[in-house]
Amino acid sequence: MNEMIYEYTHGGDIYGANGLADKNVLDFSANINPLGIPENALNAAKQSLEQSNIYPDSGCRRLIAALAAYENVEPRHLFCSNGASDIIFRIIAARKPGKILVTAPSFADYERAGGGFGAEVVYFPLHKENGFNIDNRIIGTIQTALPDIVFLCNPNNPTGCLTRYDLLAEIAITCAEINSILVIDECFLDFVPDADRYTAKTLLTTYSNVVVLKALTKTFAMPGLRLGYAICSDKTFIDRLRLCGADWPVSNVAQAAGIAALENGREYVSKSIFYIDAERRRITDALAGMGLAVYPAYANFIFFHCSWDMDLSRELRKKGILIRDCANFAGLEPGYYRIAVLTQEKNTRLIKSLKEVQASWQSRL
Amino acid sequence: MNEMIYEYTHGGDIYGANGLADKNVLDFSANINPLGIPENALNAAKQSLEQSNIYPDSGCRRLIAALAAYENVEPRHLFCSNGASDIIFRIIAARKPGKILVTAPSFADYERAGGGFGAEVVYFPLHKENGFNIDNRIIGTIQTALPDIVFLCNPNNPTGCLTRYDLLAEIAITCAEINSILVIDECFLDFVPDADRYTAKTLLTTYSNVVVLKALTKTFAMPGLRLGYAICSDKTFIDRLRLCGADWPVSNVAQAAGIAALENGREYVSKSIFYIDAERRRITDALAGMGLAVYPAYANFIFFHCSWDMDLSRELRKKGILIRDCANFAGLEPGYYRIAVLTQEKNTRLIKSLKEVQASWQSRL
Repeated sequence: MNEMIYEYTHGGDIYGANGLADKNVLDFSANINPLGIPENALNAAKQSLEQSNIYPDSGCRRLIAALAAYENVEPRHLFCSNGASDIIFRIIAARKPGKILVTAPSFADYERAGGGFGAEVVYFPLHKENGFNIDNRIIGTIQTALPDIVFLCNPNNPTGCLTRYDLLAEIAITCAEINSILVIDECFLDFVPDADRYTAKTLLTTYSNVVVLKALTKTFAMPGLRLGYAICSDKTFIDRLRLCGADWPVSNVAQAAGIAALENGREYVSKSIFYIDAERRRITDALAGMGLAVYPAYANFIFFHCSWDMDLSRELRKKGILIRDCANFAGLEPGYYRIAVLTQEKNTRLIKSLKEVQASWQSRL
Repeated sequence: MNEMIYEYTHGGDIYGANGLADKNVLDFSANINPLGIPENALNAAKQSLEQSNIYPDSGCRRLIAALAAYENVEPRHLFCSNGASDIIFRIIAARKPGKILVTAPSFADYERAGGGFGAEVVYFPLHKENGFNIDNRIIGTIQTALPDIVFLCNPNNPTGCLTRYDLLAEIAITCAEINSILVIDECFLDFVPDADRYTAKTLLTTYSNVVVLKALTKTFAMPGLRLGYAICSDKTFIDRLRLCGADWPVSNVAQAAGIAALENGREYVSKSIFYIDAERRRITDALAGMGLAVYPAYANFIFFHCSWDMDLSRELRKKGILIRDCANFAGLEPGYYRIAVLTQEKNTRLIKSLKEVQASWQSRL
């Protein structure tokens, strides 16, 4: 490992120097389902605490059965762990890549895990002129760079861009040809109304080199409990993911909450999509009305550019609102921000605060 | 990675094929504090569930402050993760060893993590003629083998043997001389009455290559919540442990429970030691009275050899009792078993069942 200095690079850090969560802050920096954790999941978590004195089921058997039904995949093609981010590190340990390919920008942990392992990181730059969309030039980049693993995020974090299924299929074929693993992170795809048109799950049976990464964290609003999963039709690779990390990655609490959340999982997701859709449009319109450059959004977060001459996130922080400044994403310059779609009331407060910040800026011009 | 087949190798698997915990089984195969999880820890865990929809504090700041006070070490020398086993994998990822040294027998995960990474595993064999004790011949082995990491468990799992402090110090010096990391796993040391005489914590400030590994899992009976920690005076190494894995390894629930458990931590440990001590002697006497070869035990588990011509764990399983058959530990032949010291009532049931098994065996002779 190089002499990397550890630095927290994500949203959701509402903790001060003393580690106490600031409950008054409005956190738009983490993209969590605004409807919150399903009540039966919370109750199941509570009940599970009575079993804190026993080890979790290492194989997550009941949880995996529930996930297999929810995702319509085979149980043996599933692996569960302590959040999707833990699985990213296990994928690196399982494949031991000499080189990985990531888009710039994208979720930072692919690069952090691969780079930390010692792999060379190749960037496929996404251009603002192209709306930060992935296009088919990535095929040539893969064929030239010959990475051991390609990481794609769909919809991409932080841009929200969706990649077409036919392009994903083409990338999967290209990766298969060069014996490369294609990891498609669909952690936000459950929030996309027509997710079935985009999911790489349908590629899994044909391409054993494809790994789909998901989490209950965002979909069922339980990031505090930690629960992610991978789907892959290569049973040997699933076994390697188990081998490449501790034996009890998922706590009793997370297993119990996950099983309960999935009981009415599809209904809950539908209800969430309906709610988020209306709010996303309302926020988008308001932001566009203020002259901010809002990118098309499909999931539960909105990516935009602000050309006001100020540090927008700092100004909002003064008003008790946290948004994700995207300046530390590889491939993005200052001025880009990401906000979650939260509840109607919170979104209204965000819009109001943004207007105040804009008015204050304009009065200084 | 070699084509290793994943196999669960630990105790505590009370789950059937359907993943449902069998609540009627008496589990002596996992070494958990028989006094259970402290009530205030359970309450804190319950309350924390209300914050399931926010990300955990990545830096575990409040938990680390509590641990620093409990362990009497500096906060910046602490790292917390999803169980001690997760930290073992992070240590491997942080150091990227070409070679590791483990004792045989010892806890399986050192070898699993190192071997899975691709490191050569050198065994320092512990001999039954020597009561499975580590002796100073290990110095020569280290000097010859030049491992990048030496893993020791104190008291050792499964044998229960304690290694003297002066020998540990000598090993630390030897490791420092060859630029090797010495990991001392003290996950069971809190149960040893005179733990202060054995802990490697006092080596930490002098030897920045020493890492002490601990967990709240066993001490405070919360294996279902997952919480382990490492102590090391090399701040750069602590940072590397953070880098070599996901950013949110400890759930809100585990952080809250841990902070609460540590409030009266020392008192709880003292009470536990007192309880376990009496029960350990009672079980030891009973086992010895049956002609079983019981090894000296200092922590909350007992290691013994059974020369009865049978599969003792299978016979006890029929009676609803789970013990740890140690045949799959490297360096041990069949006939060795490990049992936890549980509550008086459960221990009495174990002794009774053992006597029945012995009587049934004798009647067949």
